[in-house]
Amino acid sequence: MLFDMTVPQFIKMLHNLDLILDKGAQLATEKKFEVEVLLNSRLTPNQFNLIKQVQIACDTAKLCAARLSGKEAPVHNDSEKTLPELKNRIAETIAFLKTVSAADFKDAETKHISQPRWEGKYLTGVEYVIHHAVPNIYFHVTTAYSILRHNGVEIGKKDYLGELPFKK
Amino acid sequence: MLFDMTVPQFIKMLHNLDLILDKGAQLATEKKFEVEVLLNSRLTPNQFNLIKQVQIACDTAKLCAARLSGKEAPVHNDSEKTLPELKNRIAETIAFLKTVSAADFKDAETKHISQPRWEGKYLTGVEYVIHHAVPNIYFHVTTAYSILRHNGVEIGKKDYLGELPFKK
Repeated sequence: MLFDMTVPQFIKMLHNLDLILDKGAQLATEKKFEVEVLLNSRLTPNQFNLIKQVQIACDTAKLCAARLSGKEAPVHNDSEKTLPELKNRIAETIAFLKTVSAADFKDAETKHISQPRWEGKYLTGVEYVIHHAVPNIYFHVTTAYSILRHNGVEIGKKDYLGELPFKK
Repeated sequence: MLFDMTVPQFIKMLHNLDLILDKGAQLATEKKFEVEVLLNSRLTPNQFNLIKQVQIACDTAKLCAARLSGKEAPVHNDSEKTLPELKNRIAETIAFLKTVSAADFKDAETKHISQPRWEGKYLTGVEYVIHHAVPNIYFHVTTAYSILRHNGVEIGKKDYLGELPFKK
């Protein structure tokens, strides 16, 4: 279940993020302003702007999949400044996620996960997903959504959640 | 793992939400404005205000735990207008969540979960958690956080994530 909670759901959320960025671009065209205004918007002066929210959402997904599967994640140097560049960042992240399979997660639950800023401390794979990766990706996708909505882009909860796999 | 992804983590997130509301109250005292101004703030005119974000975060947690465990959730009629009332709503939700145990989730994964607006369609317990309950609770807690931050409350990612269960 650790795989289902992460890789496919992260692909879906990044896809949804890509679609709401398009809706931002559409508003920019309609209202005749540069879409970069949206990309550089933020909700408060000392919070990250939309570009950075997208970058961190991508990195959260990419690094979670890489750490739990042992696969090497593509490197990105956070140089995106335009909408096509930002959409390409999302596309490259999704392409990497699609190379990771449930079988790659065979040892994921008990793996020790750490990162430099944790100063030698670690979380198990399960703890890392539940307490860190999952809350973080939703935080950054929601904040991106909020920046767009705050600036007049007409999006709603359905754009955030995406399709639900309903059965009859 | 379905239990660990939901009940204890929802308790933690609602506790974190309670703490950032307190920080909002602290700013209101310092800057001498009514805390109700924050409670009625929103990021865009046609989005829910802070009170409603908190109510929905609570309901998402409560209903997920109730649907998956079969336990009856406490009824709330969304009448909260003041900070003490809103904090009480969170406290009652946490108290209910604490009555739900991992053993109560024994059939949760394959249970069929539905709600009136889904018009007879359903999700399995696993799908409901991954595609609906988890993305929703983080959405509403993050939006509450963003409303506070947008209005000058000094909070950061650590307030949102809370304590991580680090090991050495």
